[in-house]
Amino acid sequence: MSILDPLFRSAALDQVFSDADRVQAILHFEAALARAEAASGIIPEASARAIVAKCRVENFDLHLIAQEAAQAGNLAIPIVKQLTEAVAKDDKDSARFVHWGATSQDAIDTGVVLQLRRALELCEQDLQRLSGTLVSLAEKHRATPMVARTWMQQALPTTFGFAVAGWLEAIVRHRVRLAEIRPRVFTLQFGGAVGTLAALGSNGPAVAKALALDLKLDLPAAPWHAHRDRIAEVATTLGLCMGTLGKIARDISLRTQTEVRELFEPGGEGRGGSSTMPHKRNPVTCAVALAAAKRVPGLVSTLLSAMVQEEERGLGGWHAEWETLPELVCLVGGALHHLAEMLPGLEVDAARMRENLEITRGLIFAEAVSMALGDRMGKLPAHMLVEAACKKALAEKRHLKDVLLREPGWHGQLTAADLESLFEVRNYLGSAEEFTARVLSEAVSFSARR
Amino acid sequence: MSILDPLFRSAALDQVFSDADRVQAILHFEAALARAEAASGIIPEASARAIVAKCRVENFDLHLIAQEAAQAGNLAIPIVKQLTEAVAKDDKDSARFVHWGATSQDAIDTGVVLQLRRALELCEQDLQRLSGTLVSLAEKHRATPMVARTWMQQALPTTFGFAVAGWLEAIVRHRVRLAEIRPRVFTLQFGGAVGTLAALGSNGPAVAKALALDLKLDLPAAPWHAHRDRIAEVATTLGLCMGTLGKIARDISLRTQTEVRELFEPGGEGRGGSSTMPHKRNPVTCAVALAAAKRVPGLVSTLLSAMVQEEERGLGGWHAEWETLPELVCLVGGALHHLAEMLPGLEVDAARMRENLEITRGLIFAEAVSMALGDRMGKLPAHMLVEAACKKALAEKRHLKDVLLREPGWHGQLTAADLESLFEVRNYLGSAEEFTARVLSEAVSFSARR
Amino acid sequence: MSILDPLFRSAALDQVFSDADRVQAILHFEAALARAEAASGIIPEASARAIVAKCRVENFDLHLIAQEAAQAGNLAIPIVKQLTEAVAKDDKDSARFVHWGATSQDAIDTGVVLQLRRALELCEQDLQRLSGTLVSLAEKHRATPMVARTWMQQALPTTFGFAVAGWLEAIVRHRVRLAEIRPRVFTLQFGGAVGTLAALGSNGPAVAKALALDLKLDLPAAPWHAHRDRIAEVATTLGLCMGTLGKIARDISLRTQTEVRELFEPGGEGRGGSSTMPHKRNPVTCAVALAAAKRVPGLVSTLLSAMVQEEERGLGGWHAEWETLPELVCLVGGALHHLAEMLPGLEVDAARMRENLEITRGLIFAEAVSMALGDRMGKLPAHMLVEAACKKALAEKRHLKDVLLREPGWHGQLTAADLESLFEVRNYLGSAEEFTARVLSEAVSFSARR
Amino acid sequence: MSILDPLFRSAALDQVFSDADRVQAILHFEAALARAEAASGIIPEASARAIVAKCRVENFDLHLIAQEAAQAGNLAIPIVKQLTEAVAKDDKDSARFVHWGATSQDAIDTGVVLQLRRALELCEQDLQRLSGTLVSLAEKHRATPMVARTWMQQALPTTFGFAVAGWLEAIVRHRVRLAEIRPRVFTLQFGGAVGTLAALGSNGPAVAKALALDLKLDLPAAPWHAHRDRIAEVATTLGLCMGTLGKIARDISLRTQTEVRELFEPGGEGRGGSSTMPHKRNPVTCAVALAAAKRVPGLVSTLLSAMVQEEERGLGGWHAEWETLPELVCLVGGALHHLAEMLPGLEVDAARMRENLEITRGLIFAEAVSMALGDRMGKLPAHMLVEAACKKALAEKRHLKDVLLREPGWHGQLTAADLESLFEVRNYLGSAEEFTARVLSEAVSFSARR
Repeated sequence: MSILDPLFRSAALDQVFSDADRVQAILHFEAALARAEAASGIIPEASARAIVAKCRVENFDLHLIAQEAAQAGNLAIPIVKQLTEAVAKDDKDSARFVHWGATSQDAIDTGVVLQLRRALELCEQDLQRLSGTLVSLAEKHRATPMVARTWMQQALPTTFGFAVAGWLEAIVRHRVRLAEIRPRVFTLQFGGAVGTLAALGSNGPAVAKALALDLKLDLPAAPWHAHRDRIAEVATTLGLCMGTLGKIARDISLRTQTEVRELFEPGGEGRGGSSTMPHKRNPVTCAVALAAAKRVPGLVSTLLSAMVQEEERGLGGWHAEWETLPELVCLVGGALHHLAEMLPGLEVDAARMRENLEITRGLIFAEAVSMALGDRMGKLPAHMLVEAACKKALAEKRHLKDVLLREPGWHGQLTAADLESLFEVRNYLGSAEEFTARVLSEAVSFSARR
Repeated sequence: MSILDPLFRSAALDQVFSDADRVQAILHFEAALARAEAASGIIPEASARAIVAKCRVENFDLHLIAQEAAQAGNLAIPIVKQLTEAVAKDDKDSARFVHWGATSQDAIDTGVVLQLRRALELCEQDLQRLSGTLVSLAEKHRATPMVARTWMQQALPTTFGFAVAGWLEAIVRHRVRLAEIRPRVFTLQFGGAVGTLAALGSNGPAVAKALALDLKLDLPAAPWHAHRDRIAEVATTLGLCMGTLGKIARDISLRTQTEVRELFEPGGEGRGGSSTMPHKRNPVTCAVALAAAKRVPGLVSTLLSAMVQEEERGLGGWHAEWETLPELVCLVGGALHHLAEMLPGLEVDAARMRENLEITRGLIFAEAVSMALGDRMGKLPAHMLVEAACKKALAEKRHLKDVLLREPGWHGQLTAADLESLFEVRNYLGSAEEFTARVLSEAVSFSARR
Repeated sequence: MSILDPLFRSAALDQVFSDADRVQAILHFEAALARAEAASGIIPEASARAIVAKCRVENFDLHLIAQEAAQAGNLAIPIVKQLTEAVAKDDKDSARFVHWGATSQDAIDTGVVLQLRRALELCEQDLQRLSGTLVSLAEKHRATPMVARTWMQQALPTTFGFAVAGWLEAIVRHRVRLAEIRPRVFTLQFGGAVGTLAALGSNGPAVAKALALDLKLDLPAAPWHAHRDRIAEVATTLGLCMGTLGKIARDISLRTQTEVRELFEPGGEGRGGSSTMPHKRNPVTCAVALAAAKRVPGLVSTLLSAMVQEEERGLGGWHAEWETLPELVCLVGGALHHLAEMLPGLEVDAARMRENLEITRGLIFAEAVSMALGDRMGKLPAHMLVEAACKKALAEKRHLKDVLLREPGWHGQLTAADLESLFEVRNYLGSAEEFTARVLSEAVSFSARR
Repeated sequence: MSILDPLFRSAALDQVFSDADRVQAILHFEAALARAEAASGIIPEASARAIVAKCRVENFDLHLIAQEAAQAGNLAIPIVKQLTEAVAKDDKDSARFVHWGATSQDAIDTGVVLQLRRALELCEQDLQRLSGTLVSLAEKHRATPMVARTWMQQALPTTFGFAVAGWLEAIVRHRVRLAEIRPRVFTLQFGGAVGTLAALGSNGPAVAKALALDLKLDLPAAPWHAHRDRIAEVATTLGLCMGTLGKIARDISLRTQTEVRELFEPGGEGRGGSSTMPHKRNPVTCAVALAAAKRVPGLVSTLLSAMVQEEERGLGGWHAEWETLPELVCLVGGALHHLAEMLPGLEVDAARMRENLEITRGLIFAEAVSMALGDRMGKLPAHMLVEAACKKALAEKRHLKDVLLREPGWHGQLTAADLESLFEVRNYLGSAEEFTARVLSEAVSFSARR
């Protein structure tokens, strides 16, 4: 755990990937293996009990494991060694059955899968919470007009609720993806030294079945030691999710700018203050999510690169996963958690949104006018007429409506009242509300299905 | 098209992402839009026909499009301009209905989706072909003994068929993933300037529905301009697939080494020759796949980074996709194609595989002995006894069996005949054949379902 | 060349990395090799002349080279084959001396180095032009007040010239870096099949020396086939430069937002127009540079990954460079070129900058007040007093000065006139002008030294 | 510190980037700032002494700092707060001068620079040690014949010393690069809230000068808050170094394969043992270096992406550096340290190297024959003749020399004795020894200059 963890991560995920829980996950494998082998008649029941009794991380010397792992090249070897010694202390005979027929990678990979199951459950909880908040926000603001911006320029009116619906729909897709990968990811690893379970003679498949059952993991058709797509898929799926979280943070931070001021992260004691500028309220959660969005793509690329593992069990590629995957999960999960915490308190300044719709002096209604005229005089001539009027309005700092009222080009095509109504926000929101409603319905029905 | 394309890519995918097909895909959108708007009564049928008639890339000046795109910032603007001019030449009135209510991104994104549909179909064909080859290889060699290597060291015996089954199972998973993403990827983009379809008044959803139907694309709940997970997901899914292709190439290249010589890429006129070493037969297809495996992770990370797009339509992130995504698809698809072409001709030297099982002088059977003894005298003592014998065998360059025969430690535990049989390959393949059979059955049933 | 090249790249760099120039660069190597070997007495002068005469890309069939490279695994093999045939047509005896003693990688790597030399020269020209523009801008606006923004929030006053000086100083550092790498990058590759130049007997070093001299390249202590730091260093150095270019584009795009409007890319016919919003002027150059800034880091990571090349000449890693490096150079050079083209026309709205200094109603002077008070009453109490006043000013939408005038807390510490002057921009620019002057002097003296 | 640290990292670098040392580095800045401001007459000498006295990490509550940083958004705010409170306890008046005129980023960035200075010093020590080992190895084995492999195929003879010289020369280049970046990296950050040092009135530059002097850092022309090339350059330079370290590990791991067995990592108690295969000696250090080589490129790309920081101080990009940079430095430095530790014990089996030169039955001398014949009968005919002989030798499992002796094609061109001598390793090592000598001389003279 490091001094920056509370800023970037969540306490619950930190726990899942703590040293203790990492070792315990490996011990869960060893305990389940003993039970499965006893159930299959491979080792004595009493030995299984003796082994299971010792599989508690509290009894292990983590510092010694760390030192020996540096020699052995992985964590499982010193863990199995300590476990064997612990069992032997009470029951010499049973000690020989520790880790029976398994290889280090079986224990380490299955351990990681068990950690991932807990981690993705935590992520799903935060995604659900985030979805709920976004549903509320989108409903509440389904008719709150806001300027839409494209290429970082004001474009046309939209509603804040529709913008939120865009975030929401992406979050729902990520939940669908995370559900789809479950059967591939939550899968037992158990193949022995080279994937053949040769050390178990012909009993391999039976033990594997019992072991999967014990750990409530899926049983794959074959061990997958050097085939890392199951692991890398967690990274890519969370990587996609991170893109959306970063986009949400980017949107909020842009709308929080001093010149825009439509949205604010909730304040609070010591929250986002500046050491030198007492008036500032920095969007700390956005910073956290944007930082994670910068970091995660590189970590995804590492895990994809690391997939090229040699033959039956690879050299270096597998080792590259051990810290990268937890880091990636914690960063995505941390950003998700902080956003899920922050968003219920998001301050929305609907009045300011309305004011910002006015600052182009009608230019954001140029398309509305252009379409209405285009309908009558052809798209290109209309576009050119309106483009000229826009330039004039800009140059003379006048309202587009006023400029147009004095332009002869469109007379006869529209009445002045028509023109007036073209500059009403509510007349140019198109299907924003309908689209929002569809997204909400989709999101609600997804949550109901789960 | 560049001089290195035939080496790294496939001609069919190159075609899909050629300039001409890229422009044509955008024109498919424009034609379908005109038809959908005519069907919805938004524009006259005759205008739609006039527009559709001009939507053929042969009539467009690609060089001019390229030049104007540099000013406009995207391809759709000059394409729409040329299309409007072309329609106007014959039918001035209809020209105004070109691109009616749409924005550049609608045309460009939908165009990309249409290209991706063709591209992923080509990939699926090659994945199917590759699967078929791997099924045959795995079946043929299900009982061909080969040494398994872990950490790039000989470990235990396995079979070549089981190694192939590992590749195959991963390939099947990639086909499952590619099937899962279809409904999210093959989806219409149509939202107008800011996603509200405001220019179409209340007709937006009806036109969108007709348009999706015309293009045989799914209709999303809402436009997804700045939400790029649908696009990035193609990258991540193919990125995972690339990892497996790279792993296959790495395995083959390792087994093709002069000192190993178990596998060979097929030869042929000018294939893999060296300019200076007439005896060499370089694994060119492996080089191609390994190069792609180096390049694709960085491209995936780019597309994930690019997801952080601003507000309603982003600046820079979207533009970063335009070349990156085609490049990524062509690299993965190219490596896949070359491997699918090469693998049916892969030469397997089963005799050499057998010879390589002998070069450790029995050391790869150490585990077999260790397990058999461990069963009787405890795992740790057995491990230590065998470890000592191995060291002796190594130091004295003797066969492990001979060393053990002279070791008193295990006497009484095993007979000499027992020991002899422990050094038989076929007695230490564990469940390799059973696992292979399971994977084959899974692969065959997957292909049957499609 | 692709339809998006004029948008993202520069014509001059595209030329350097065109198929024709790539082949020609390899032919430059072959010609120089013949001359060097003739000069060293290894091959006859007449043969060298016969070879040199044929080393013109115009005489080569690029399509055939592309097809054969797909079989051979690299470009040099078919090029050497065609060259040999061409020489043989006129002079059968000389044909045998083509490519004498060299390996494909010698020709390809040295060819790339020759292309890089031209490419980096073009980059340096654009960097120099960009520096010149930034020097002018910084000088012109050294005293133009502008609000400084941190964490995307208005912070304190600064000057636009100082902001430009920040860009400029980074650009100067990039020029220094690019100068530093020259001796390592512009280096001959010549080692024969495995780096020993064995095919030349004991003449290797002499030929290498003559060859380096002929090509005006540095002569390394030894060939560097599988040691790719010289190549990867081009990528990392340009990657750093891209970061600064992206930062410049980010800054401009933020200050171009409709709500900020301090800076504008120059307009022009068809420049940055929207297909649906006639009033928009999209920052196209910023989009181009930001897109490149998204793409280049992934390409750098590819080239770093690709450095892990096997033994004397690697499999896959080397191949991964062939398209990645040109793409990276063209993207960085393209963004650089477009920015260098655009920046002289950048429109600076100094009046608007001044207006934006007012929109916080004095809050950006909070630090000025805080420091002045802190001096007298302690930093923390001052910070707290000012923080409270800021909150009040925000809540009541009043000017901070007015709120403070009514606050008793600071009375006795400052006069009302003191307070008034604390809200003068020019009194709180600190050392902005001095720092700007230092940067300018550094930049000018760097340019003078070159 | 995590349970995998001893495996992947070095204890000394871990210490530099520990929480305590990170906080202490920030406190070094605060102490030096107080001294510099006292020296410049900005704050009282007594206050400076009071502040300096408290700047010891032992007195700080790291847990509280972590919690408050999560609210504040950075570490400096809670550290300054605790420091102020600590000073105030003894000396209320002096407390107001803590952090006077500085911003959080000044303290954090300068703190990082101070950590980097220590870290790069440690790296240089290990690079020097590694160079020394490589110099010895290259000297010792300058004439030890070994087969050279290209594209993972045996090619021609070389010497092991020359292969080591290749590693060595790259390492020397990395040391040159690391020396070049020092003046850009070891530079003070001090600009106040927005880089103008406005809070110090006109005293900014004087304080900056004193502060740089105090910390023995270079004084830049201007602060560099949002210009991150100085930081990113550390990442790219170490990233290049990592590529070479990965290449060394790849080479060793390939030559350690059971079928090759030319090199071995030193053994030792518990070193590289397998949990299930008692005979294995896994190359643990190679695994560590290869894993780092997989991970570092993605981290470099993160730091390059993060360079696009907004305006005066960015949102998210800066935050992305805080954990990424230390991780990158520790991974590169860790791999370097483990290699530097391991290489002095590398076991070189020169006899086995010689045996491996024989396993192609003369094929690796094909080029020697080809060149000798080419000299006489033309390169292409010679190539074809030898190629045919090679095929025959392969097909019939005969020695190439024997095949050739029975081939009429070359008779008259060479004597049988000529042919015999073409198959002598020492006659086809080309300039391997000369190149090795040059590299050694370069390396020794570089070390002498330092």
